[in-house]
Parts: sequence; structure tokens; C-alpha cells
Amino acid sequence: MVFKKVTLIGTSTESFDDAADDAIARAQNTLENVYWAEVEEFGVELKNVDEPEYQATLEVAFEVEG
Amino acid sequence: MVFKKVTLIGTSTESFDDAADDAIARAQNTLENVYWAEVEEFGVELKNVDEPEYQATLEVAFEVEG
Amino acid sequence: MVFKKVTLIGTSTESFDDAADDAIARAQNTLENVYWAEVEEFGVELKNVDEPEYQATLEVAFEVEG
Amino acid sequence: MVFKKVTLIGTSTESFDDAADDAIARAQNTLENVYWAEVEEFGVELKNVDEPEYQATLEVAFEVEG
Amino acid sequence: MVFKKVTLIGTSTESFDDAADDAIARAQNTLENVYWAEVEEFGVELKNVDEPEYQATLEVAFEVEG
Amino acid sequence: MVFKKVTLIGTSTESFDDAADDAIARAQNTLENVYWAEVEEFGVELKNVDEPEYQATLEVAFEVEG
Amino acid sequence: MVFKKVTLIGTSTESFDDAADDAIARAQNTLENVYWAEVEEFGVELKNVDEPEYQATLEVAFEVEG
Amino acid sequence: MVFKKVTLIGTSTESFDDAADDAIARAQNTLENVYWAEVEEFGVELKNVDEPEYQATLEVAFEVEG
Amino acid sequence: MVFKKVTLIGTSTESFDDAADDAIARAQNTLENVYWAEVEEFGVELKNVDEPEYQATLEVAFEVEG
Amino acid sequence: MVFKKVTLIGTSTESFDDAADDAIARAQNTLENVYWAEVEEFGVELKNVDEPEYQATLEVAFEVEG
Amino acid sequence: MVFKKVTLIGTSTESFDDAADDAIARAQNTLENVYWAEVEEFGVELKNVDEPEYQATLEVAFEVEG
Amino acid sequence: MVFKKVTLIGTSTESFDDAADDAIARAQNTLENVYWAEVEEFGVELKNVDEPEYQATLEVAFEVEG
Repeated sequence: MVFKKVTLIGTSTESFDDAADDAIARAQNTLENVYWAEVEEFGVELKNVDEPEYQATLEVAFEVEG
Repeated sequence: MVFKKVTLIGTSTESFDDAADDAIARAQNTLENVYWAEVEEFGVELKNVDEPEYQATLEVAFEVEG
Repeated sequence: MVFKKVTLIGTSTESFDDAADDAIARAQNTLENVYWAEVEEFGVELKNVDEPEYQATLEVAFEVEG
Repeated sequence: MVFKKVTLIGTSTESFDDAADDAIARAQNTLENVYWAEVEEFGVELKNVDEPEYQATLEVAFEVEG
Repeated sequence: MVFKKVTLIGTSTESFDDAADDAIARAQNTLENVYWAEVEEFGVELKNVDEPEYQATLEVAFEVEG
Repeated sequence: MVFKKVTLIGTSTESFDDAADDAIARAQNTLENVYWAEVEEFGVELKNVDEPEYQATLEVAFEVEG
Repeated sequence: MVFKKVTLIGTSTESFDDAADDAIARAQNTLENVYWAEVEEFGVELKNVDEPEYQATLEVAFEVEG
Repeated sequence: MVFKKVTLIGTSTESFDDAADDAIARAQNTLENVYWAEVEEFGVELKNVDEPEYQATLEVAFEVEG
Repeated sequence: MVFKKVTLIGTSTESFDDAADDAIARAQNTLENVYWAEVEEFGVELKNVDEPEYQATLEVAFEVEG
Repeated sequence: MVFKKVTLIGTSTESFDDAADDAIARAQNTLENVYWAEVEEFGVELKNVDEPEYQATLEVAFEVEG
Repeated sequence: MVFKKVTLIGTSTESFDDAADDAIARAQNTLENVYWAEVEEFGVELKNVDEPEYQATLEVAFEVEG
Repeated sequence: MVFKKVTLIGTSTESFDDAADDAIARAQNTLENVYWAEVEEFGVELKNVDEPEYQATLEVAFEVEG
């Protein structure tokens, strides 16, 4: 069994949780056999946006064929 | 005054905040004189679970007899 | 264009998100041209408080005159 | 000359070396011009497995067209 | 579900793998519901020993009552 | 909005700046909607090369469909 | 031979050395076969105290039955 | 003698060196008794700019009255 | 309640403790509502000084108006 | 008693353990009073070699005259 | 094959690249079989110098007899 | 101007300061043109010693011919 990890950054105008869910949703829509995710960092974009944009950087692990 | 730190991982199907509260509740139910907690990492279990399971790893500090 | 970063710690009795918003609000009320913020750490104060106090340490970047 | 790095997690019921080789084999079977690999971490899965499952997370570098 | 992590250092005169297994065996003999382990560091004691003593420091996670 | 990050290593016989530009050029030629890049490390290959080869490892972030 | 590590925080109104000794004394009074300690961090409490309180966080390693 | 450190981010469309010099120039124009600077990170802004914008984050140390 | 952190480097020809106290004294003389300090690093200047100059870099947290 | 640390990288076509032993053997053949070693990183060279070359970077501590 | 790593700090009044080259030149003039170098940090000395002195700290790896 | 850094571990039965001074004294007795030192870590040996042995690991920088 071999896993691969990719780094995704989700965004939300609501919360860090929503931003993380955004990245997880993207992973589950485009990858099969997603196993787990690890939060790498949280940030907030405050310029050039109407309201604060929460960002969550996640490493997502999924199984690939060995 | 001497403190000891233990590492607890709380879980929740709702949010990272709930997962952290889960670990804090465990600490306060089993330890006396809990002073503070520090978040070590956030993760999400996505396989073998019905819905995403948020996990919060916390170091919890409590006073012990010196 | 030159930016400066300052470290602020927001607090909340509700959640880590609220604690981060507390630091961001402080930044936006006292600084001009705030661009972004990065979460450095989350903690929880549990002693000498009526209810858990969530703390979010953020580095906030804003533009200064070059 | 430009390289790209991907993160792979190999597994083995034998040893950390075997788990690393598992990730390297995967890389060499699916990528051309693999140059080197760096171990990021070693872990062991102990629940929901018949015997301990060693895991090796590696960053693998390979040449891409510049 | 709440997990707790403890840090154990296993030793072996044979290999790092054996040293890690030594720590895992200790964990499984004294704790219930062990889930996973993470290698923190590997070292080698070379003085005051007959032959090199490999040491593996592991964080071991096990379930506790929430 | 979701971003993805990939790790690229550019090379140059001239300077670290050129090595970074090499990785950025590769990103912009093969990816759309590149937003920013972060330098992870600088290195120099000195063996098996005619002259020092500067290497710049960058994490490059680009927008993907959410 | 298996070791376990625990994290203790000693305090002192005199110095960082005294704070470290405070944690070591606690370890030696409550644990057998203490082998070594590593300083994780030094801090100073300045509010809600009569005079500065130096704090030393140490990881203490002791032998347990294998 | 007491020093204070501030974090400045200089920018340049030319190079990382120029971006660092930009932050240093800002420090020397607004602070007295600047002693040294340490590079914290290099980045590149690639979106919403006409050409790549190199960014250098520096911690700058200067003497304050003790 | 919002806190701000500043980085100060105290110096002493006597000891690391004295160097830390030097930074703390500076903080308490120029800031109100100082809460705590964390040691970031210790160093020693040995050139261009009559005797070794101990240096302690501290992050000092104080309350600001929210 | 004063110790000095040097960084050695051992190599092997067999395993990480053998690569670490290679560095330790080098240390013991050329230095007296070697006390301990710490693994800094493991890597694998895969290009320009007949078979994978395991590399172990170790910091080795030995006593010098005080 | 065994490698050894040494840490050298090159300096330049021109640029970080020149400071790195300064360290590399020193390595190649005094060591045989230099293989590669890794940048550890960049700094700038601004006091007690006529113009800014760029400093590059590099770890340099070279082959020694096994 | 080129500097080299070596890692020394001083020991003392008195304090961390004395342990650091022990490493510095060794550096100044055996090296010329020592410029500065940085504390890497503090530890305490508690087994196989009559009284606690404080250990200070320092990186010491000295000028070498460029």
C-alpha cells in the first residue's frame, strides 16, 4: 500500500474550519481513497478582498496503486 | 510550584474547536489544577469514518506537588 | 513597497476563530493598510478565568512607507 | 534543468527500510529520471492491522522538462 | 474518543528497527488500545556499552476514556 | 477558491536568483493561475558539474477549480 | 532497556538554573532511575506574581521495565 | 545595552538581494543604531503584479536605551 | 483582551540570567501591563568586547487596548 | 569535560542501518573517546548509481581535552 | 563512501550570492572532493562596517576516506 | 573574511552558565579569532554521575583565512 500527499489551500469568508472543509471537499471530489489530512497553517487575507478570507493549508493523503 | 504536561488528542465530527474542547474536557475530568493548553496540531481522519473526524492534539499543563 | 509585521494575541471565550478575529480587529483599528495575517499558535488559558479563554497568536503584515 | 518533488508514503509489515523501498519502487515505476529521495518521517500503524505496519514518508525528486 | 500520547525510548544492540519494536512492545504490554506511533529521533550510545546501542524515541498514541 | 502547491527545484550556473526564476518559469509555462512562490531552500551542486550549479527549491501555489 | 520521557516545568523566583533544578528535584523525588533531562524552553511569568517567576520546561528520561 | 528586533518585508522587481536591501534601507531611514539583520524568508508574488515581485522578510536588530 | 509581543535582546557580562533580566527590566520600564516573556535564544559575543557579553533574546507579551 | 560534535554521512547499498554504521565506523576509526551519535536525516541517492545508495547523516560526539 | 560536513560563513559587500561563493571558494581551496553545499542562513552586518556586509552560512559536504 | 563554526559541549556540576563558559574557554584556548557563540541546547546528565552534570551545546564561530 502506497500513499501520496498533496498540499491544498482552502478558503472561506466564514472560519478556519470552513476553509479546511473547502480543501477537503476539493480533495474528495478529485481524488479517490482519501485517508487523512493534516493542517499545515492557517492564514487570513485582508487586502483586495471584501471581507477577511480565511485560508487553511492542508496536506491530504490518499492511496495510490503500489 | 511544579507543572507537568501531558499530550491529549480530542476528536469531533463538528469542528477543530470541538475537538480541542474534547481534549480539554478530558483533562479537566481526570486532572486537578489544570492551568493552560497549547495546540500542537490539527488533523482530519477521512477513511473508516462515517463523516470527517476532526482531531486536535493539545499539550495540557497542570500543577503537581513540588 | 515595504511591509512590517507585528505579533498580536487575540482572546475569546467562544472559539479560536473569535480569538483570531479579535487580533485582526485590533490590527485594523490601529493600523492602516493591513494586508494579511498568519496564525502562529493557538492556546487556551484554563486557570484564573471563569471559562476557557481561547488565545490566537497572529503575525499581522501591513504596508509602511518605503 | 528543473526538478519536481512529490511526497510518497510506503508501507511494510517488515521494517522501515522496506517501507522506504516501497515508496521508492512506486516512484521508479511511475516516474522517469528519479534522482534522490529524503525521508520525512517514520511511523507505525498499530490498530486495525494484523501486525504492525511500518510507514516511511519520503520526498522524491525527479527531473522534469524545464 | 480521546487519545493520549506518551514518549518511549526503545533500545537494541541490533538495529533502529529493533529499537523501535522494543518501544512498541513495551507500549502494547502496558497500555490498551494502542493506535499508532511516530518516530521522534534515532540515536546511538557508543560509550559505556559493550557494543553500539541503538535508541529509538517514539511517541505512542492510545485511546483513553473520553 | 482552492489553491494547490507543488515543489519545484530550479537550477542555474549563475546565481540563486536565476535558479529561482528557472523554477518560476517552469511553473508559469505548465500551470495556469500561479499566485505566489516561497523559497524552501538554496543549495549548490559542486561535484560532477563543470561549474557550481545553484539550486533553488520553491513551493509554488496556483488556483485550481474548487 | 526502555526509557520513558515526561515533561515537567519547574519554577523559581531566582534564576533559570533554579527553575530547572526544581523540575529535576521533582523528577528524582517521584521517579526511579532518572537518566537525563533536556531543556525545552525557558519563560518568565511577570503578571499576578510578586516578583518575576522563572520557568524551565524539561523533558526528563527515566528507565521503565521493558 | 538592549536591542529590539522588528520584522520588515522589502520588495523588488529585480532580485532577492534588492528586496533585502529595500528592507534594510527602510530600517536605516527610520531607526538609529541598526546593528544587524537576519533573513527570515524569501517569497515571490506572481499574481496581480506586472512582473514577479521578490519579497525578503528580515528581522532587523537595533539598539534601544536600556 | 489583546496582547502584543515585542522582541528584546538583553546583554550582560555576568550570565544569561542577567541578560534576560536586562531585557525584562527594559520591558517593564517602557511598557505597561507586561504579562510574560519567552526566551528565544542565548548567545555570547566574544570579539570586540573586553569580556564575554551574554545575550538573551526574549519575546515579551503585554496587554494593549482591544 | 568538553565534547565536540562532527557531522558525518555514511552510505550503504543495503539499508539505513548500514549507512549509519558506516558513519559510526568512520568516527571510531579516526576519533578517540566517541560517546554517542544522533541521526540527523536519512536520504537515498537514486541517479548515477547502480543500485539505491542509502545515506545517513549523523552528528557524532566525542570528548576533547577541556 | 563517507562524507563530512563543515559549516562555513562567507562574507561580501556585494550580495548574498557573493557571500555564498566566498564560502564555497574557501571550501574548494582547503578541502578535496567537495560535493555539495546547503545554505543555512543569510544575514547582514550593519554596524562597525563601512557598508553592509552580507553573510551566508553554508554547510559544505566533502568525501573523506571511509 | 570567512568564518567557520564548530559545535562544542561544555559541562559543569554548577550551572548552565558554567557549562557554557566551559565550552567557550575550550574554544578560546584552542582557536584564534573567536567571534561569537550560540547556545544550541541545554541538558542535564543525572545517571552515572555523583551530582547533576549540566551540559551546554554551543556553536562557536571563528575567523579562518579566506
